[in-house]
Amino acid sequence: MTDGTSRSAQRGRPGYDLDSLLHTAVKVFHERGYDGTSMEDLAKRLGITKSAIYYHVPSKQELLRLSVNRALDALFAVLDEPESGTGAAIDRLHHVVWRSVEVLVDELPFVTLLLRVRGNSKVERQALARRRELDHLVGELVAEAEHEGSLRLDVDPALTSRLLFGMVNSLIEWYRPRHGLTKNEIADAVTKIAFDGLRRPAT
Amino acid sequence: MTDGTSRSAQRGRPGYDLDSLLHTAVKVFHERGYDGTSMEDLAKRLGITKSAIYYHVPSKQELLRLSVNRALDALFAVLDEPESGTGAAIDRLHHVVWRSVEVLVDELPFVTLLLRVRGNSKVERQALARRRELDHLVGELVAEAEHEGSLRLDVDPALTSRLLFGMVNSLIEWYRPRHGLTKNEIADAVTKIAFDGLRRPAT
Repeated sequence: MTDGTSRSAQRGRPGYDLDSLLHTAVKVFHERGYDGTSMEDLAKRLGITKSAIYYHVPSKQELLRLSVNRALDALFAVLDEPESGTGAAIDRLHHVVWRSVEVLVDELPFVTLLLRVRGNSKVERQALARRRELDHLVGELVAEAEHEGSLRLDVDPALTSRLLFGMVNSLIEWYRPRHGLTKNEIADAVTKIAFDGLRRPAT
Repeated sequence: MTDGTSRSAQRGRPGYDLDSLLHTAVKVFHERGYDGTSMEDLAKRLGITKSAIYYHVPSKQELLRLSVNRALDALFAVLDEPESGTGAAIDRLHHVVWRSVEVLVDELPFVTLLLRVRGNSKVERQALARRRELDHLVGELVAEAEHEGSLRLDVDPALTSRLLFGMVNSLIEWYRPRHGLTKNEIADAVTKIAFDGLRRPAT
C-alpha cells in the first residue's frame, strides 16, 4: 500500500490506530508464534507498510510489551476496585475471582499471550515479574480469608490459590466467544464451583 | 560418540532405551519447541549419533506420537479402572478426577506436551481427536452425575466439566516436583475444592 503518504498518515494515523494494530499483532503471534512472526509478516497481514507500523512502535518487542501490559494492567485494576479492598476477605476474594473472569473474557487474546510468556527476553521477564506480584497479592488475600476463618482448614492456602486461579485461567484454553456463554454466566459458574463445590448440597 | 558399533549396539540397545530417549526428547521439545528441535539437536543432547536415534524411531514425528500417546493411554486407562465403572456417578467422577491428577503428576512432561498440541500435523490432529474422545467420555460421566441428582443444578454440566478439568490441567502450569507436594496431597486438594468448595462449611 502507498497509504504512508495519504491524508490519514499526515494526520498521524497511517490506516491503523495502536489499538487495532495490537489486536492484529496478537492474533498473528498466536497463529505463528511470537518468534516466528516478523514485522514483515505483520505489515502484510495489516495491509500496510512496515514504516506505518514503526510509526506506532519502535519494535516487535514493544508490541509484545504493550500487549502483555494491557492484560496485566486490567488484572491489577481489579485489585484496586473498592469491592476488592473492603469487607470480609472471602467476599473480596469472591469479587477478585469474578472480575478476573470478566477481564479474561474481555481481554482474551492479551491474557492468553501473557499466560504463555516463558521468560525468553527482558520484556517477558518483566511480564513474569508483574505476574508474580499479582499472584502474591492474590495469595495474601487467600491467606487473609484463611485467618478470618472463612476457608476450609484441610487444604493448604497456597494450593487453594493455585487451583482457584488454575480454574480461572483455564478459560484461555477452552473459552471461545462463539460458544455463546456470557462472561456473567462463566463468572457465576467459576465462583459457585470454586467457593461452594459442584456437589449438590444435602437438603 | 562411536558407540554405534559397541557391544551394546550389537545387542540392540545403542546407549539409550526408548523410554529414556522419549524423556529426553520431550525435555528438549519443551525447551526449544517441537518445531525448533532437530534430530541433530536431540542426538547432541543425548550424546549419541542420529543413527542411534533412528534405530529406535523413524522420525521426530514418531517421537511426538509416542510421547502424546503415552499421556493419552495413561488417561484413558483411568476410565477403565473398576472404580470408574461402578457405583454412583458422582463417586466415579471423583475417582476419575483423583486419578487424573495422579497421572498428570506421574507423566507431567508427556501430559504437558499433549495439552500444548495445536493440530499442526497429522500426529497432532490424531492426538487432538483422542483428547476430544476423552473429554466426551468425562462429559458423559458429568451428565450422569447430573441425572442422578448429585450435581448442583445452577451450573451447566458442560461448563462444570470444563472448569473441573481446567483446574486439574492447571497442574502443568504450576506443579514442579521440587515443590515437595505429593500427588496424594494435590489430588486431595483438587477433589475437596472442586466437589465441596474452598469455603469453610457453616457449622
